[in-house]
Amino acid sequence: MKDLIIQKYGGSSVSDIEKIKNVAKKIIQTKQEGKDVIVVVSAMGDTTDSLTEMAYAISERPKEREMDILLSTGEQISIALLAIAIHSMGYDVISLTGPQCGIVTSDRYNKARIDEIHTKRIRKELEQGKIVIVAGFQGINHKMDITTLGRGGSDTTAVALAAALKANLCQIYTDVDGIYTSDPRIVPNAKLIPSISYDEVLELASLGAKILHPRSIELADKYKVPLEVRSSFHHHKGTTIKEDAKMEKVFIRGISLDENIGKISVLEVPDKPGIAFQLFSSLASLDIHVDMIVQNVNRNGVNDISFTVSMDELQEAIEVAQKFAFKVNANKVIYDKAVAKLSVVGTGVLDNAEIASNFFESLFELGINIQMISTSEIKISCIIDKEKGKEALKYMYQKFNI
Amino acid sequence: MKDLIIQKYGGSSVSDIEKIKNVAKKIIQTKQEGKDVIVVVSAMGDTTDSLTEMAYAISERPKEREMDILLSTGEQISIALLAIAIHSMGYDVISLTGPQCGIVTSDRYNKARIDEIHTKRIRKELEQGKIVIVAGFQGINHKMDITTLGRGGSDTTAVALAAALKANLCQIYTDVDGIYTSDPRIVPNAKLIPSISYDEVLELASLGAKILHPRSIELADKYKVPLEVRSSFHHHKGTTIKEDAKMEKVFIRGISLDENIGKISVLEVPDKPGIAFQLFSSLASLDIHVDMIVQNVNRNGVNDISFTVSMDELQEAIEVAQKFAFKVNANKVIYDKAVAKLSVVGTGVLDNAEIASNFFESLFELGINIQMISTSEIKISCIIDKEKGKEALKYMYQKFNI
Repeated sequence: MKDLIIQKYGGSSVSDIEKIKNVAKKIIQTKQEGKDVIVVVSAMGDTTDSLTEMAYAISERPKEREMDILLSTGEQISIALLAIAIHSMGYDVISLTGPQCGIVTSDRYNKARIDEIHTKRIRKELEQGKIVIVAGFQGINHKMDITTLGRGGSDTTAVALAAALKANLCQIYTDVDGIYTSDPRIVPNAKLIPSISYDEVLELASLGAKILHPRSIELADKYKVPLEVRSSFHHHKGTTIKEDAKMEKVFIRGISLDENIGKISVLEVPDKPGIAFQLFSSLASLDIHVDMIVQNVNRNGVNDISFTVSMDELQEAIEVAQKFAFKVNANKVIYDKAVAKLSVVGTGVLDNAEIASNFFESLFELGINIQMISTSEIKISCIIDKEKGKEALKYMYQKFNI
Repeated sequence: MKDLIIQKYGGSSVSDIEKIKNVAKKIIQTKQEGKDVIVVVSAMGDTTDSLTEMAYAISERPKEREMDILLSTGEQISIALLAIAIHSMGYDVISLTGPQCGIVTSDRYNKARIDEIHTKRIRKELEQGKIVIVAGFQGINHKMDITTLGRGGSDTTAVALAAALKANLCQIYTDVDGIYTSDPRIVPNAKLIPSISYDEVLELASLGAKILHPRSIELADKYKVPLEVRSSFHHHKGTTIKEDAKMEKVFIRGISLDENIGKISVLEVPDKPGIAFQLFSSLASLDIHVDMIVQNVNRNGVNDISFTVSMDELQEAIEVAQKFAFKVNANKVIYDKAVAKLSVVGTGVLDNAEIASNFFESLFELGINIQMISTSEIKISCIIDKEKGKEALKYMYQKFNI
């Protein structure tokens, strides 16, 4: 049986006609190497943003179901154009929308989860020797309505297809060369990581490395799908993500900065058992991903609860927090958009007390106030003033000498 | 049971956000009058043209199946935005793509025919009191692929829905006030026709009145769907199209000019029985609509066969003609894009010899050469030099004193 490769191309890789033709050539090259190829594509360039803008020019709160009908056209345009390009180069090809591809999701609009993939049609097309182009970011729910998968949706489509079809490799083509030890735009001497484990990249991604969405990495980890992140603009090898990469036991993998977050605090929440649970279960039921949580115990039988969410979920999260505050008779809800999260990631981070002390010392040396702290087995994160974020990242990168 | 109104809005009626909001208000007004409303929408403004341009920038011959995936996004964007607008005004609404709406078509891409409409979902949504917005121009074929209906597709969607659901009225909203006795842009004193029969409007439409595509009128005629053509920009009554309008027996309904045609001639075709049939059945099998046909008998056992097609089918028709010419050993194929069709339409046209003689006399007076002639029960058409078309139209309109 032939090797099966899933390739995913992001919006910047197909942002104009020339780039689409270039991607078509890359795909054909893989086909010529004797492999079966399934390609997942995002919407061209800033199509999704333009469509979103139009919707918000009509309504402050566009209906979620209709947003999915609207946004799913972006990927549908890409798959058609890419298929037209490949066909014009003499190769047999077929494009499939999410619904056509059998990607069945939860009923939730805008942030649907993939429930299952009916692979019958995609297998049939592969058996006929066709290159299959699949629209990322979308599926169909049980009401037969189009759904979109939310942030990181196209990566998730690619990994889910790789898992369902037991692909040999899932390649994520993007506008960067791979995963770096820090953001190369801020830290010029950041280095490309050739090989990394799911866990480590998960921490780096959710911390703002912005290359792969945590959802897709979690899924890859669950089904042990080997991933490769590489540039769509040249042929250099990128970063391979797989289980055993962890064996290398690197102390510090990288340092990252996430500026795309907001902090919400609910002040003076009466201190009763299970009260925080009410807030976080309301958020979870709306698929709002809460990142860091800090609860300060006050003296007068009331707590302050603070948490962070990604910027695009901030508005919704504030509303949830306000309903909660009203219900439990808390004092008030405040929020802050001018925050950033700085994190150091690596398998050795928590084993090595020196790393933590260096981390906090650096912030002290820069006179940066730490608003929140959170740790996991392989990372330490702090919420700091957004204005100081880039300076802190650069300083720390030098300090740790990565 | 409530009255059911189908409203169709063309691309120029939804070409920007303000117009979409305006259309939303018109729809709500009908709903407020206590009627059930289904709305069929075209793609915004020149969306379809831009998408087509992109495809042709990639390939001279974009794959037909992929073109349908591509072009169907245009209407999908419109339905979502219109539904968002109606929802923001406080009304319950749902948008449905062609496939979601159960519009099942033939397998032919780019020019699919509607085979049947599964009305279950649309009925369910209506019963729940929703305004239903349907994407025009598209459906799904038996392979579960998206198809588009070709020219006049959105009108056809509206009429087919009206027929399937036995609607009380099908309103076609457009950028003109209704159907005129001639093209008001060329003949300034052309008059609005308040009421007209299917037959007459069919001749006017296929002759370049450009308001309604013949397909949709034929379908309306077949199922006796009452049509109304009116402007989406104001509240004036437009033109009603229904069966008994013919009873009025107007001699001349109008004069029209179609500049969007090309003429193809196959020269020196051997004169054998059934040979012309081969050519026209090949064209028909590709759904190329042939309009006028003229066959001249030569002396040496060979014929010249000339026919006209609409400009967008010219390229394909030339290729068919060339294959035919090669197969039957004809001399060559020539074509002419610089032609126009001038027609006089009305139930009295052929009953009244004076009309025909006036028609030909006018062309003679203007020194215009007649290249082809065709007649039906209610019209006379001539193919003439495109350059002379507008002049001839104006002159004849005065001559007939409509």
